[in-house]
Amino acid sequence: MSELLANHIAGRWQTGSGSGTALFDPVLGTELVRVDAGGIDLPAAFQRIRSEGGAALRALTYAQRAAMLAAAVKVLQAHRDTYYEIATANSGTVKNDSAIDIDGGIYTLSTYAKLGEGLGAQRALLDGEPSRLGKDPLFQSQHVRVPRRGLALFINAFNFPGWGLWEKAAPALLSGVPVIVKPGTPTAWLTQRMVKDIIDAGVLPACALSVICGSSAGLLDALEPFDVLSFTGSADTAAVIRTHAAVAKRSVRANIEADSLNSAILLPGEGPGSEAFDLFVKEVAREMTQKSGQKCTAVRRVLIPENQYDAVAEALRARLSKVTVGNPRNESVRMGSLVSRAQFDSVRSGLQALASQTETLHDGAAQALVDADPQVACCIGPTLLGTRRADEAHLVHDTEVFGPVATLVPYRNSAHAIELARRGLGSLVTSIYGSDPAALGAAALELADSHGRVHVVSPDVGASHSGHGNVMPQSVHGGPGRAGGGEELGGLRALDFYHQRTAIQASTSVLSSFTL
Amino acid sequence: MSELLANHIAGRWQTGSGSGTALFDPVLGTELVRVDAGGIDLPAAFQRIRSEGGAALRALTYAQRAAMLAAAVKVLQAHRDTYYEIATANSGTVKNDSAIDIDGGIYTLSTYAKLGEGLGAQRALLDGEPSRLGKDPLFQSQHVRVPRRGLALFINAFNFPGWGLWEKAAPALLSGVPVIVKPGTPTAWLTQRMVKDIIDAGVLPACALSVICGSSAGLLDALEPFDVLSFTGSADTAAVIRTHAAVAKRSVRANIEADSLNSAILLPGEGPGSEAFDLFVKEVAREMTQKSGQKCTAVRRVLIPENQYDAVAEALRARLSKVTVGNPRNESVRMGSLVSRAQFDSVRSGLQALASQTETLHDGAAQALVDADPQVACCIGPTLLGTRRADEAHLVHDTEVFGPVATLVPYRNSAHAIELARRGLGSLVTSIYGSDPAALGAAALELADSHGRVHVVSPDVGASHSGHGNVMPQSVHGGPGRAGGGEELGGLRALDFYHQRTAIQASTSVLSSFTL
Repeated sequence: MSELLANHIAGRWQTGSGSGTALFDPVLGTELVRVDAGGIDLPAAFQRIRSEGGAALRALTYAQRAAMLAAAVKVLQAHRDTYYEIATANSGTVKNDSAIDIDGGIYTLSTYAKLGEGLGAQRALLDGEPSRLGKDPLFQSQHVRVPRRGLALFINAFNFPGWGLWEKAAPALLSGVPVIVKPGTPTAWLTQRMVKDIIDAGVLPACALSVICGSSAGLLDALEPFDVLSFTGSADTAAVIRTHAAVAKRSVRANIEADSLNSAILLPGEGPGSEAFDLFVKEVAREMTQKSGQKCTAVRRVLIPENQYDAVAEALRARLSKVTVGNPRNESVRMGSLVSRAQFDSVRSGLQALASQTETLHDGAAQALVDADPQVACCIGPTLLGTRRADEAHLVHDTEVFGPVATLVPYRNSAHAIELARRGLGSLVTSIYGSDPAALGAAALELADSHGRVHVVSPDVGASHSGHGNVMPQSVHGGPGRAGGGEELGGLRALDFYHQRTAIQASTSVLSSFTL
Repeated sequence: MSELLANHIAGRWQTGSGSGTALFDPVLGTELVRVDAGGIDLPAAFQRIRSEGGAALRALTYAQRAAMLAAAVKVLQAHRDTYYEIATANSGTVKNDSAIDIDGGIYTLSTYAKLGEGLGAQRALLDGEPSRLGKDPLFQSQHVRVPRRGLALFINAFNFPGWGLWEKAAPALLSGVPVIVKPGTPTAWLTQRMVKDIIDAGVLPACALSVICGSSAGLLDALEPFDVLSFTGSADTAAVIRTHAAVAKRSVRANIEADSLNSAILLPGEGPGSEAFDLFVKEVAREMTQKSGQKCTAVRRVLIPENQYDAVAEALRARLSKVTVGNPRNESVRMGSLVSRAQFDSVRSGLQALASQTETLHDGAAQALVDADPQVACCIGPTLLGTRRADEAHLVHDTEVFGPVATLVPYRNSAHAIELARRGLGSLVTSIYGSDPAALGAAALELADSHGRVHVVSPDVGASHSGHGNVMPQSVHGGPGRAGGGEELGGLRALDFYHQRTAIQASTSVLSSFTL
């Protein structure tokens, strides 16, 4: 049997009491490690994390916590090679795709280390200016933000075991809130290893960072009113979390990032040969294939002017047909596999569902694999679908196929394009492509209410833009409605979730006595 | 039969199809009016409100919407006398208590009219500065806030039919989001009348403001992903709302204000004769009796140094025994009735529950009523309870008796006082009383994480402070944990709930093209 990974909980290593769930290499089919979370006294551990981890972190200033994050960055950088090995084996990703998760996570952590340094030697934050409450200028209201005195539980998704940990843990730890991460089981190994390296290096106070791998049973039951919960995953699981007593009755603050039918929009007036057209095709193809389309932010709906349907289909087909798929250890391979057999089956059944309302413009299912056994490897080539009936094809707007799959959706005019983007009922991101700054700006503002992020690509930033699906720590990540209504990152905005905002109404002599 | 109040929904008046629920005078026991919400096609009405009301409001600038709120203030001021009559009859409140609801509501509305004017001639808000996303300064991220394109549903509490409407509607309308209010049934009349006056005056666009009185059946079913929901009421109903598919599955943004065991803390070193002691006793007595203790923010737990137990009991008894209770139409009466027989019964059973862990220091149940029939009137005198076992008396920290009831809770030292305040598991407000600015400031920061507001009373602001329970529009209102985890008001902070924050990543040429 393979190694049973230990959990690190409330300052000590503890191996699960069960035989464990196996994690596999999705390309070779071999068992890698096992995880198990049985036998942990969760309420006692959580209580210790709140009291010891919380107190230790809150005793530090923001600048001290930022220095701690910077030290964690160094530890992770020293172990990068190991992380790439684990990613190749457990996520089946090629090096460039592993980088998004591993180096993207380290970059996010280092961004918060820098932001935190700027907050300096204080332990609480002022929020706005004092404001008078009446005629007497002596009595005023001053809002402050103070760290929540609970813990932060992260229930994470399988597609970003590295970045998903750090994009949440960096702002939490910087805020002075101890973290427990429960990684998505199929790829939990990388999360566990990163936590292990940080713990072994001793850069964090005891009980500041815990990892529990395996089942999430009992985790929510142990949450108390001052805790926070951040979840990334399916809308179905999100509904289970929201209806759990921890959230419904105990008011645990919850941030949800769920399904998203992201779109990319080629504005009218751009055709083959125009720079915007080429940038659009390049970006859509990249989004479809990066991490085999297993990104919450990946383009699912490709919105194009009706008269460009054939031209875009042709241009994408040309790009997609060059994408080699298979064993990520083979240097000629550009796209690796899906993370698991379950995901492979899910993509296949999603494609079947969409088949009733779409035509297949480029079929990846039939693609020959490089250096991989199609009976074993969870690989599938990029698949482009299309519909000529944008309004009627409701499955296209409702069904997230979490793999290298997107659908061409033609629109009649700009207003129709925006209406179709909104058919996603709230998405993480949309991107728009064009060459007229005013038209791009107007479209971006029109799309803002139904998206957490609008990514605009014009020729002047064709080489330097950060990518449709790439989540930058400077920008908020999350979206309304179907996307879960959550908000992460956005620079220092991320700290809000881990702080309580409180109005202190007092005499100016009291307000000026504050030692933050 | 009494008048059946009409609902105003999606631009037209519509009387419920049922026979209705009667609203009563809680002092005289007479039937006043009836409400009914049967027979309304809610999904169709909600859709019309979203499309027509939303579009009309969003077409206006913030300054124009602010002018609209200012016009609404004038309408309400012109009808103040009627509102006071309705409050006396339906809420059983004395004039000073009616004022908190009526003039408090108008003041809050006028505050947002002024704040909105300052936002000027724009229709969306910038959020922070642009920030670079890479080495190329040409590509940046700019966060914006744009109005949500859904509607705002308010499910309100019976204790503030006036203020409860406007403290929510003012920021919503200013944000460009149309409002539907479902007032608490026992006192729905005042809400309905205020809406009626505003509609009749024509100061708002069609479909901008709707009122539905009676049952809330079907309201949540009609909510869609871009809508928002704000609820004030019991923790039990809050849990029902949070587990409803609208919130759990469709990610409707929800703000909850629920139960709260607010405290008032007399700091150590203050005894009879000190200014802080006197201010403390005065404020606690006021909080217990104002609106017969039917305020979410009222003091429920009176935290005092152990050695002041008898002195505080004596001083409060002296004040409470002077409070005349009965028919609010009699000018000698200082405290009117509870709003309904149901609330009267609830207070009685709450007192019974607390009796097992407290002693009665001042018994209001036996108090003779002025000008009111004790068999009919829902009046109860202020009741002070006490416990000598602060830690063991868990009911005192868990049971909110929504009437003129508070419990003396002795503490050993400052740390113990703060620990006891936290036993409320998250409260709307705590107030602290003392004379040392540094000690008050330190205590305020310590209490901040478990409260939405900390109200500090020192002798220099003894005459000018805004009151423990008085919710000022400048300060956030809401609290973590048991208090529901919500946040309202706080000046322009309240607009956040009605806006979507979105990162727009684009070339500086696109960002500078924005017409907000």
